[in-house]
Amino acid sequence: MNFKWMGVRRNPVPLAALVVIVGIPSMAMASSERVDRTDAARKAIVGGHARNVILLIGDGMGDSEITIARNYEVGAAGRLAMDKLPLTGAYTTYAVEKSDPTKPDYTPDSASSATAFSTGHKSYDGAISVTPDERPQPTVLELAKRAGLRTGDVSTAELQDATPAAAASHVPNRYCRGPQSMTLCPASSKENGGPGSISEQLIETKPDVLLGGGMRYFNQTVQAGPYQGKTVLEQARASGYRIVTDGQALAAATPDAPLLGLFADSDLDREWTGPVPVRENTPPAACAPNADRAAGQPHLVDMTRKAIELLSRQTEGKKRGFFLQIEGAAIDKAAHTADPCGQIGETVGFDAAVAEALRYQRRHPDTLVVVTADHGHSSQIVEAGSVTSGLTATVRTREGADMTVNYSTAPAPGWEQQHTGTQVRIAAGGPQAANVLGITDQTEVFVNLRRALGI
Amino acid sequence: MNFKWMGVRRNPVPLAALVVIVGIPSMAMASSERVDRTDAARKAIVGGHARNVILLIGDGMGDSEITIARNYEVGAAGRLAMDKLPLTGAYTTYAVEKSDPTKPDYTPDSASSATAFSTGHKSYDGAISVTPDERPQPTVLELAKRAGLRTGDVSTAELQDATPAAAASHVPNRYCRGPQSMTLCPASSKENGGPGSISEQLIETKPDVLLGGGMRYFNQTVQAGPYQGKTVLEQARASGYRIVTDGQALAAATPDAPLLGLFADSDLDREWTGPVPVRENTPPAACAPNADRAAGQPHLVDMTRKAIELLSRQTEGKKRGFFLQIEGAAIDKAAHTADPCGQIGETVGFDAAVAEALRYQRRHPDTLVVVTADHGHSSQIVEAGSVTSGLTATVRTREGADMTVNYSTAPAPGWEQQHTGTQVRIAAGGPQAANVLGITDQTEVFVNLRRALGI
Repeated sequence: MNFKWMGVRRNPVPLAALVVIVGIPSMAMASSERVDRTDAARKAIVGGHARNVILLIGDGMGDSEITIARNYEVGAAGRLAMDKLPLTGAYTTYAVEKSDPTKPDYTPDSASSATAFSTGHKSYDGAISVTPDERPQPTVLELAKRAGLRTGDVSTAELQDATPAAAASHVPNRYCRGPQSMTLCPASSKENGGPGSISEQLIETKPDVLLGGGMRYFNQTVQAGPYQGKTVLEQARASGYRIVTDGQALAAATPDAPLLGLFADSDLDREWTGPVPVRENTPPAACAPNADRAAGQPHLVDMTRKAIELLSRQTEGKKRGFFLQIEGAAIDKAAHTADPCGQIGETVGFDAAVAEALRYQRRHPDTLVVVTADHGHSSQIVEAGSVTSGLTATVRTREGADMTVNYSTAPAPGWEQQHTGTQVRIAAGGPQAANVLGITDQTEVFVNLRRALGI
Repeated sequence: MNFKWMGVRRNPVPLAALVVIVGIPSMAMASSERVDRTDAARKAIVGGHARNVILLIGDGMGDSEITIARNYEVGAAGRLAMDKLPLTGAYTTYAVEKSDPTKPDYTPDSASSATAFSTGHKSYDGAISVTPDERPQPTVLELAKRAGLRTGDVSTAELQDATPAAAASHVPNRYCRGPQSMTLCPASSKENGGPGSISEQLIETKPDVLLGGGMRYFNQTVQAGPYQGKTVLEQARASGYRIVTDGQALAAATPDAPLLGLFADSDLDREWTGPVPVRENTPPAACAPNADRAAGQPHLVDMTRKAIELLSRQTEGKKRGFFLQIEGAAIDKAAHTADPCGQIGETVGFDAAVAEALRYQRRHPDTLVVVTADHGHSSQIVEAGSVTSGLTATVRTREGADMTVNYSTAPAPGWEQQHTGTQVRIAAGGPQAANVLGITDQTEVFVNLRRALGI
């Protein structure tokens, strides 16, 4: 019947004291104001090879999560950096059942989805770049390194978290993160002749730039092999890594050695904080910077800028360019805990990293930039002030309007919100970007990046 | 933390007796199997003018709703007809507040959204092709007709419902559907010198093809003017319309007169039926055809095929082509009532209409086909078998896997589920289709269609 839900409406939209008006949405749009973008689209289609690839993953950043962040930060009529990529489509993210890989699992986790775009293989939830029968598969990052490109792996989560882990390691269970945390992957452990934990494998794959959290696993002790008795951090140093642990040291890092940046024991802190969703909705409130964020911890944009700078300088004048993966990890983590401002702040932080990648691409048009999500998430924009069967909070956006965000996929308050199985946006610019058009599958990213890099 | 929700899992995936396997999702995807689509993308970008435009609107068909239908009908790795359109993007759907049109309303209804793509103007919820100050604005259909094109307006809802109404009428409130239902729009009524109800205006705009439901308003009595005392149906006949009321008469209709098809008193019946979502989820079940569907009622694909046939024959050898709007209306209506199989059946029915449009386009490549939604909706794919804070049902898809669909935007069972404010997919093929790439706004459809048709 197309009715809007006519429920409780609190606070009939008084204008906030400080309002950034980014657009006047109701303005009539005469045809003369809207140019034909056909020629621009033609120009955006570039085949051939890319010297560099920057792959940016917003974890859990479905179309709903993107819209929420845009509405808040730049207004419904405004545009994020990620909105400016010229070629766009959606891709499917489903996983498969481990016990019967012919059978789809319609709601992926970040491990199966990262395995899909990293290796081109569908796998089961929890798999880190292994097939359903637990065979390791080469990743884009590994193939790039093998072909002589420089590589980077950056995340706001622990480097052992699913997305950064799947770029450069292979274990049958995502929680096998350090040499003393291998109970779920006995056959993978060094003492059993396996390739070791995610932490050990990351160091052995040896991307030129490794930036994120997860110090706690690097402090674990290697159990067998040449580094037995040393911590993984000591192993990293012995392997040639220079190690930094704060933003200042990161900024000062030079390109003459591989760089391992570990800026938190676990995940990096969230950028923003704000109203906590409740059953009966909240009064409208703005988001605020997270005052508890550790001093000296770099932001995703800082890590991105530095990673690009280092890889760019390392490849200057060289035959081969670089492959860099950047993850905005806590969009997902904030959505799991029903934290709208956390989610928005992480999306805005991720978007700043996208802007940084696009800035580099303008000077280096032989760079393919791909921006996508690994899967969709719970958050929904519902009628401002309404009550749902789940948890809602109302945030007052920077353009002075009220946006109610609903989280309703957990069985009860206090439980984790779920991923969703929706197709998600993929956007790209640069050589081979046209392969994201239409409906594709997550595994095709692997194919497209290999083709783009000629590896 | 990226955990999947580890809740209740019922029925550990026994294979259904009859399974249509559409793909083996876990198959490794070697790069040789995936061709570079750069050249195909280049070829898909066609500027210039379109002789014909077919605009297909899936009401409430966000990316989540598309994914649900795809998973069910053709499998997660399968492809719908709408998936095959070559150029794709997402658009924003927000409305504005009537009292202060500089202020966005982040969750549109079908009236404000249809007004946006029909007229290029943002308006308030409930507006039928009028601005926030209630001024009527010309629609694409009206401009096309004025320029000498043939026109059609087709829906599975009442023709007076928001989407078909906004194509060819102008009232300040969407519920002013017949001459005896004008209490919310006194100034629009004929007896007050206004343009009349939606029903009367549809007849006066006089598209060449008008197919849908809503007989009950056509049976109302005109209150003033030359047709005073007659029903709107009599007015339609007197204006030259030939009237049909079942699928057989529809199939037999010839192009020598304008055609009004009214196949239900209210909306047309839903195509499918199936499990009713409950608080504790349901056992997995397949969808089934709706046995209560009225005999003789045409399907959306029948109406689409006939509309294209009539408009095509009417414009054969003529200077000008046609503009045809097709709405799959009950995707939204089924989602409002938390009816997953209803929603899927309507999406599949809508997709058959898309296939029909694409079939016509293959023979007439000077046709622009645009497929989009007016706004997103409630339904989410969550972990199979899980329980949420809302209502869930588990459908067993044709590929034999279980998909749990969550509806949680209503405050309690029995209440209507809400629209959501997410950006939604827009896909196109043909002249000017490249203008859907990236992130655009709903109002740009109006601009693009005018440019395409040169009107």
